[in-house]
Amino acid sequence: MDFSSFLTSLGTSFIIFVVLMIVFAFLSSRPGNNVVYYPNRILKGLEPLEGGYKSRNPFTWIKEALTSSERDVVAMSGVDTAVYFVFLGTVLGILVFSGMILLPVLLPVAVTDDGWKSQTTSNGTFSELDKLSMANITQKSNRLWAFFICCYWVSIVSFILLWRAYKHVSWLRGEALKAPDVKPEQFAVVVRDIPAVAEGQTRKDQVDSYFKTIYPDTFYRSMIVTDHKKADKIWEELEGYKKKLARAEAVFEKSKTDANPEGTRPTNRTGLLGICGSKVDSIEYYNEQINETITKLEAEQKVTLKDKQQNAAIIFFSSRVVAASAAQSLHAQMVDTWSVLAAPEPRQLLWPNLKIKYFQREVRQYVVYFIVALTILFYMIPIAFISAFTTLQNLVKLLPFIKPVVRITVLRTVLEAYLPQIALIVFLALLPKLLLILSKMEGIPTESHAIRAASGKYFYFTVLNVFIGVTLGGTLFGTLKTLENSPNKLVSLLASSLPGNATFFLTYVALKFFVGYGLELSRLVPLIIFHLKRKYLCKTDAELREAWAPGDLGYGTRVPGDMLIVTIVFCYSVIAPLIVPFGALYFGLGWLILRNQALKVYVPSYESYGRMWPHIHNRILASLILYQVTMLGYFGVQKFYYAPFLIPLPLLSILFGFVCAKKFYPAFERPTLEVAANTMNVAPNMDLVFRAFIPPSLSSEKIDEEDFEDARSHV
Amino acid sequence: MDFSSFLTSLGTSFIIFVVLMIVFAFLSSRPGNNVVYYPNRILKGLEPLEGGYKSRNPFTWIKEALTSSERDVVAMSGVDTAVYFVFLGTVLGILVFSGMILLPVLLPVAVTDDGWKSQTTSNGTFSELDKLSMANITQKSNRLWAFFICCYWVSIVSFILLWRAYKHVSWLRGEALKAPDVKPEQFAVVVRDIPAVAEGQTRKDQVDSYFKTIYPDTFYRSMIVTDHKKADKIWEELEGYKKKLARAEAVFEKSKTDANPEGTRPTNRTGLLGICGSKVDSIEYYNEQINETITKLEAEQKVTLKDKQQNAAIIFFSSRVVAASAAQSLHAQMVDTWSVLAAPEPRQLLWPNLKIKYFQREVRQYVVYFIVALTILFYMIPIAFISAFTTLQNLVKLLPFIKPVVRITVLRTVLEAYLPQIALIVFLALLPKLLLILSKMEGIPTESHAIRAASGKYFYFTVLNVFIGVTLGGTLFGTLKTLENSPNKLVSLLASSLPGNATFFLTYVALKFFVGYGLELSRLVPLIIFHLKRKYLCKTDAELREAWAPGDLGYGTRVPGDMLIVTIVFCYSVIAPLIVPFGALYFGLGWLILRNQALKVYVPSYESYGRMWPHIHNRILASLILYQVTMLGYFGVQKFYYAPFLIPLPLLSILFGFVCAKKFYPAFERPTLEVAANTMNVAPNMDLVFRAFIPPSLSSEKIDEEDFEDARSHV
Repeated sequence: MDFSSFLTSLGTSFIIFVVLMIVFAFLSSRPGNNVVYYPNRILKGLEPLEGGYKSRNPFTWIKEALTSSERDVVAMSGVDTAVYFVFLGTVLGILVFSGMILLPVLLPVAVTDDGWKSQTTSNGTFSELDKLSMANITQKSNRLWAFFICCYWVSIVSFILLWRAYKHVSWLRGEALKAPDVKPEQFAVVVRDIPAVAEGQTRKDQVDSYFKTIYPDTFYRSMIVTDHKKADKIWEELEGYKKKLARAEAVFEKSKTDANPEGTRPTNRTGLLGICGSKVDSIEYYNEQINETITKLEAEQKVTLKDKQQNAAIIFFSSRVVAASAAQSLHAQMVDTWSVLAAPEPRQLLWPNLKIKYFQREVRQYVVYFIVALTILFYMIPIAFISAFTTLQNLVKLLPFIKPVVRITVLRTVLEAYLPQIALIVFLALLPKLLLILSKMEGIPTESHAIRAASGKYFYFTVLNVFIGVTLGGTLFGTLKTLENSPNKLVSLLASSLPGNATFFLTYVALKFFVGYGLELSRLVPLIIFHLKRKYLCKTDAELREAWAPGDLGYGTRVPGDMLIVTIVFCYSVIAPLIVPFGALYFGLGWLILRNQALKVYVPSYESYGRMWPHIHNRILASLILYQVTMLGYFGVQKFYYAPFLIPLPLLSILFGFVCAKKFYPAFERPTLEVAANTMNVAPNMDLVFRAFIPPSLSSEKIDEEDFEDARSHV
Repeated sequence: MDFSSFLTSLGTSFIIFVVLMIVFAFLSSRPGNNVVYYPNRILKGLEPLEGGYKSRNPFTWIKEALTSSERDVVAMSGVDTAVYFVFLGTVLGILVFSGMILLPVLLPVAVTDDGWKSQTTSNGTFSELDKLSMANITQKSNRLWAFFICCYWVSIVSFILLWRAYKHVSWLRGEALKAPDVKPEQFAVVVRDIPAVAEGQTRKDQVDSYFKTIYPDTFYRSMIVTDHKKADKIWEELEGYKKKLARAEAVFEKSKTDANPEGTRPTNRTGLLGICGSKVDSIEYYNEQINETITKLEAEQKVTLKDKQQNAAIIFFSSRVVAASAAQSLHAQMVDTWSVLAAPEPRQLLWPNLKIKYFQREVRQYVVYFIVALTILFYMIPIAFISAFTTLQNLVKLLPFIKPVVRITVLRTVLEAYLPQIALIVFLALLPKLLLILSKMEGIPTESHAIRAASGKYFYFTVLNVFIGVTLGGTLFGTLKTLENSPNKLVSLLASSLPGNATFFLTYVALKFFVGYGLELSRLVPLIIFHLKRKYLCKTDAELREAWAPGDLGYGTRVPGDMLIVTIVFCYSVIAPLIVPFGALYFGLGWLILRNQALKVYVPSYESYGRMWPHIHNRILASLILYQVTMLGYFGVQKFYYAPFLIPLPLLSILFGFVCAKKFYPAFERPTLEVAANTMNVAPNMDLVFRAFIPPSLSSEKIDEEDFEDARSHV
């Protein structure tokens, strides 16, 4: 890619961004779109906009985002979101502090040399941009000392800011858990691997007597986990009929015009998809179905609670400290029985995973790791092909009929700039679902944990395949002789391939922040979908609410995406310092725009009190280590004699990670007692705590609670 | 070593053993020696012998040892000793079950082949014994299948018995901890890394308020750890003076004969070592000194309790479950503050280590590991030299003046048989102290833990240096050309060196059990020392008691010694199956004789409730893996095509170790709640529990407790 196509790419990206900003300013000021642009505020019962519409200028949202405090974010979107901003802020900080030294020092050093002319390894692709990079330095030159020192500078800045961030997040988590309001999960533990019931004893008696012995004063009651898959299904059926009834009634109401005051009773067919079968009156039919399903559900509930009890239970305590302490204490002499776990939020529980036994969980975990490793390795091949073929020259060769298109210069430049990146982005969109399913198969008991696990896998996938794959793939296809000469020197091969791909990644980053964040802010796609649905599909209020439900921030895929940028920017920071401001812009814009989205749009679907942070921290460290090792290799390629003095850097990083894990991590893994011991403002209503954990398909106001005694214990 | 010298060695060992047995039977039946042969019974207030002396035949002790139950051992010597017998019994079981297949199958297979004649690698040292070993098998022969299958047999027997043993020990530990009598350590936790005290607050207030908040109902009181080194010193001085006073009074009493009814008042000199200085009346002088020292001690106690408080404390709870739960719960958000630990027995506490900070402990640990690794590596060189030089031929060459001695055939054979082994045993006796000191420097808080750590280091030392060192050393000096040809193939080098050293280790094992256990049972050395002391040194009863104090079983050095035998026997079991009965004899005799010693002689100096077992288990597994890897190498040396089918064995061992660690280990590391929740037979007297942890140098009946309030908290 030459310099002009780089500038074109940058320019078009920027223009798209500006257009999207204007679109946003226009659309978001129309009250009809409020549910798309301010759903979080609406759901929280707040006015969509503070101060009304009149006095508002189109950039107020920037001011609001900038002036919002972390406390606001926690209040509106929870600790997890606040932690995400700590992540964005920390990386931004690292890049700004690094850039303050790197840009003024390294760019002049690089541009005044002309090493590339004397080097034989560059294979004719040297562009203007490369003059600003380390590739332009004469081998063995003393100028390399400047780059060497900058390697240390970036690392040290990272250590300091990461340390502060970890400390801050730990404090945030502590404060949130300390809060004096009653959170049901803080009064419960999940116990798994309950041994078989002795003859003549019920599961409930077994669990109750076990915990009553250990916690005579604070044990409240227990809830046996049941296999309520079938009840869930019936319950969903019931909910479906209820929705359809509401819809039919709404249609009926609407049909009562002045001309036809009686209205037309809607009808439907009972057969497949409502297309075939006999025609019936919808309202009557659905009422009938609802009554039938309720009877079915009640019968199934009884069966479930009595006969489908599993080897897991939720135990409730009347004291927060005791629950916290119980969640981390070893209860049984045999560790694969009565294993406990701090209860997650009820909505996060993955019920079907609770019954999986101890060693089966272990085995599943390793099997999944193996499958993921295979996936990562075998995706490498297609990505390498894509990155080699999606240059315009290759496409023209393969598809001669697009030649006329390529002749138009502007279009050609645009295509050349974006083709590989678009291919990559589409390609990556396919994977997260698969990884989440795989992670759930590990037997992980909570939603947030599964998302973290999937996110970690996705990170390794993106780094290995996108970053290393594209870099090496380009080189392997470009200079096959390199492979022949040194098939084993992966690091130095990677290192020597880096400069050649700098502009690719520069464009990638720019595309991601301008177009990606532009789309994010303007919410064009949700807006269009919402208006289409509102016009053609939605009949009832409930359906309308569903149409604009904003969803959550999408931690699981957002973080690995950002981490890929972190990895790219770290690895290029010293080689091609020009990438640093782009990275800073990515995280700065991201912070600003997502701040707006977090405060006004997205509604978190769970709260894990910042448990994502240790994962983010470790992934940033992994990127840092990759960067340090790559730099070690690249200094070797540049034949710098003092390159071995970089060896302490990765060791330092590992030590730093080790110290952080020792000092901070346990408080993320387990509830700490000093936090749980904080006084509550009211005594918890234990019945409400207990009810919070009843799955919706098993809760029922109609049936008397006495009927459920089989799976629950007396107070 | 040829066959006759092997038989001589065996014969002499056996004769020594028989003599020692007769000596024991004779000496132990004399009431004057009771304190040497039955001190544990005497200290427990039991009759030295059940049923008196008359009716006793000299082999009754064997019957008593065999009929004693595990419960007896626990009652007389504690769980740790019982676990040691589980170890002996398990290894004995493995060897017996292995031998039942190995001996009848492998010996005939080996003896009917004559592969050694056709092999060029054997360098003329082939002896009659080697005809019974795998070295006698023709290379690539199908007979190797028998050995191959036996490799699996030994491993599977080991897995089954180890699993049962681990389960049994876990049960033993649970039962002991469940016991309804009050153990002070079950009501306390040690807290370290207490953060700095806020201004205007005392350490005691800080600790008390912290724990009172978390445990409002069950917190009893706290005891701040102090630096009482100086008080200890004064206290020891005081005890010394008290002993000397008692001694002086005893001497004075004795001097009151009929001839001299007034007696002679003993005198001593006050200067260096009682040799110089002015002569004073001993009784008066010591009384004076005692009074002076008491004043000094009291002053020092006050200073210690007030001004020498450390950043550690012991916290007492009124509930066993709460203490158990507190010991394993995370208290502080920052893990390097307020770190807790289940309290050990008071006598086990290593007070000076309690104040060492979290990360300092980590650093110390790695530094010590590094030093130990160096020690292990650099001891290798002298051991290789010793094993090469301590053959008689070499000694004669080096020290020509011993030639006449060597001419006497009997002496020559004996010397030839024992010289290298004795050198080795003496050599190994020097190390354990050093390793214990190093382990304590790690910052380990309890005596038993330090001993375990030292014992683990000692195991790796013996295996690496004695076993591998001797084996390789012999080969390296014997056939230097092997080293030149393949310097990297350590495993196959080790494997091919094994058969040549089989007789060396056979003799080593025999020497260890016949002479070692003979000396152990007969207790000749302690007997002689006791009688000498009694006659010439002891004047008072207290001194006499000290003279026969039996000490403990010496876990720390005994286990690694046994483990070396386990390693040797495992590694040779299939190569030279003749070693299996020797190994079985070692552990059988060991079991019998130590059973007697445990029941009657040794007094345990601490109780860790079987926490040694996981270490033993892992070391046995490590031996097993070494054996499996060696066999893999040896089958390669024998050019057996199916050798790679042995690869699953070490992998299986690792998996087995992993499963055991997951299932059983946590219950050894932490107190389990179901055990702690067992009902007590009396409510604990919390004051006694508290007082049990006061170091002797700080406890004082005279001083009112109010004076000590600085470091202790109110009830």
